[in-house]
Amino acid sequence: MIKAAVIGYGNIGSGVVSVLRENEAAIRRQAGDAIVPVCVLDLRDFPGDVMEHCVVRDIREICGNPEIRIVVETMGGEHPAFEYVDACLRAGKHVITSNKALVAAFGPRLFQTARENRVNFLFEASVGGAIPIIRPLISCITGDPVREITGILNGTTNYMLTQMSEQGAEYQAALKTAQELGFAERNPEADVEGFDACRKIAILSSLAFGGWVDYRKIDTTGITGISKGDILAAKAFGFSVKLLGRAKMEAGTLYARVSPACVGPEHPLFAVNGVMNAVLVRGDKMGDLMFYGAGAGKLPTASAVVADIVSAVRH
Amino acid sequence: MIKAAVIGYGNIGSGVVSVLRENEAAIRRQAGDAIVPVCVLDLRDFPGDVMEHCVVRDIREICGNPEIRIVVETMGGEHPAFEYVDACLRAGKHVITSNKALVAAFGPRLFQTARENRVNFLFEASVGGAIPIIRPLISCITGDPVREITGILNGTTNYMLTQMSEQGAEYQAALKTAQELGFAERNPEADVEGFDACRKIAILSSLAFGGWVDYRKIDTTGITGISKGDILAAKAFGFSVKLLGRAKMEAGTLYARVSPACVGPEHPLFAVNGVMNAVLVRGDKMGDLMFYGAGAGKLPTASAVVADIVSAVRH
Repeated sequence: MIKAAVIGYGNIGSGVVSVLRENEAAIRRQAGDAIVPVCVLDLRDFPGDVMEHCVVRDIREICGNPEIRIVVETMGGEHPAFEYVDACLRAGKHVITSNKALVAAFGPRLFQTARENRVNFLFEASVGGAIPIIRPLISCITGDPVREITGILNGTTNYMLTQMSEQGAEYQAALKTAQELGFAERNPEADVEGFDACRKIAILSSLAFGGWVDYRKIDTTGITGISKGDILAAKAFGFSVKLLGRAKMEAGTLYARVSPACVGPEHPLFAVNGVMNAVLVRGDKMGDLMFYGAGAGKLPTASAVVADIVSAVRH
Repeated sequence: MIKAAVIGYGNIGSGVVSVLRENEAAIRRQAGDAIVPVCVLDLRDFPGDVMEHCVVRDIREICGNPEIRIVVETMGGEHPAFEYVDACLRAGKHVITSNKALVAAFGPRLFQTARENRVNFLFEASVGGAIPIIRPLISCITGDPVREITGILNGTTNYMLTQMSEQGAEYQAALKTAQELGFAERNPEADVEGFDACRKIAILSSLAFGGWVDYRKIDTTGITGISKGDILAAKAFGFSVKLLGRAKMEAGTLYARVSPACVGPEHPLFAVNGVMNAVLVRGDKMGDLMFYGAGAGKLPTASAVVADIVSAVRH
């Protein structure tokens, strides 16, 4: 039996506990051992929850517990996520995260720390929710150099743009619906200004093109300037408006940006609607590959976290 | 430097040599060592070809050469591919194949032989051409059991159906165009009767659901009974006709079949046209994932073979 701890028991964190419990037998077959969530770190209480009596307040109760071998970080944000993850890696624990802000800001430092401590630091769920894209970039797309990556990387904005196009909704109405359905946060800035997509294209570019791409240098425009009129005009000409994260290597220089764009019906990303995400990867020999799936949501994202847990256990 | 041999120097085999040569520096970075094709086994001569002076006629020149560590099998068909691959595995060589007939017929025996000889037997290119789907099924989709797989698994028939829909071509005209463009063979039976798709869905089901699915037991209908009228009638109602390979696990029983089907515009496979392939994988928690790319073609398929070579070298 392998004991796991979850840091941040919100939407994704509680999803991870659900998936580990509900898919217990299947996960045991995949990992070769049972994986059991034994505690969660959170400042809140969770009366009535299955983890009610396993809540701890201090990260030392996780790093200092030699029985815990896997730590899942789903609290989000840069701090204190960085300090917590760093402490767990140094304590010899494998860390799995869904936190793109953490990976975009501290990726290289944390990989180095993981390497020095001979543990895994895995982050499949940080980009594209349920979509396997990190591992395919590292271990499947190795025969042909990636030339270009184009992705619909944010479920909230894609949902809003789809609403505006299909229902003729105004921006504010689409945002309100997204918030009511839990797809957008009360402060939607990270999504609608493109900051979330920017961190994700930075992570993908770093893996695909080597080096580490600083997300702060990526020119980023969100969808706040897009009106219902823009969308309907594009639609009248057969186009769909998407918020795209793009990165292209040309003559040794990497060009990257996040911006809304018109996508035509022949483009594989044209039909990616609602909260779905997709990443298109282009190479000279392999042509276009696309990876598509639920870009957000509690259980889809949690299933990607759990796949990383299985991977850490298998190694 | 790692020496590789290629069995069957046709379309895919020569593509593998091209990709290894043209992407040499990038592949060396990925694999940590140079991978050099040193000989090809074929009964034909290749005057003027880069491998002209490296053609051998006897498999023993490959199995008996201790310097060759990687063998690529791209000859197709069950025999003598099976005997050749078996001999190479027993000689302690990693084998990479693009041959779905071989994997569907002899997969379990060859895996066992590979295990006993502590070498890799890899077959990413046997399904979906360039699309990474075998490795994702084995090592990425491990947090949530697969419930259902639906794929457009044959580029030739998808090209023909697309021609019939977009150009209003009759079946015979679409077949003729596909043959002229090299997408269909002179004897197109394996493609148009669905036999190729059948082997591929058998391989995918085996990996996704465990056990080994016998392709001979899968009810298979091809596209030979589809007329231009059928396609246009479907189109008039907003549907697209696709040849689908499908497998579903329900209450412990696996249902699998290959048949043409009407696909609506909301379905992720609706917009998969021409020689592109796509595989949709469904789970309860992760939802729908789709893997899309060039399902056939010399260089796309070769790039998947080369990715497997890199993987064998890394291990």
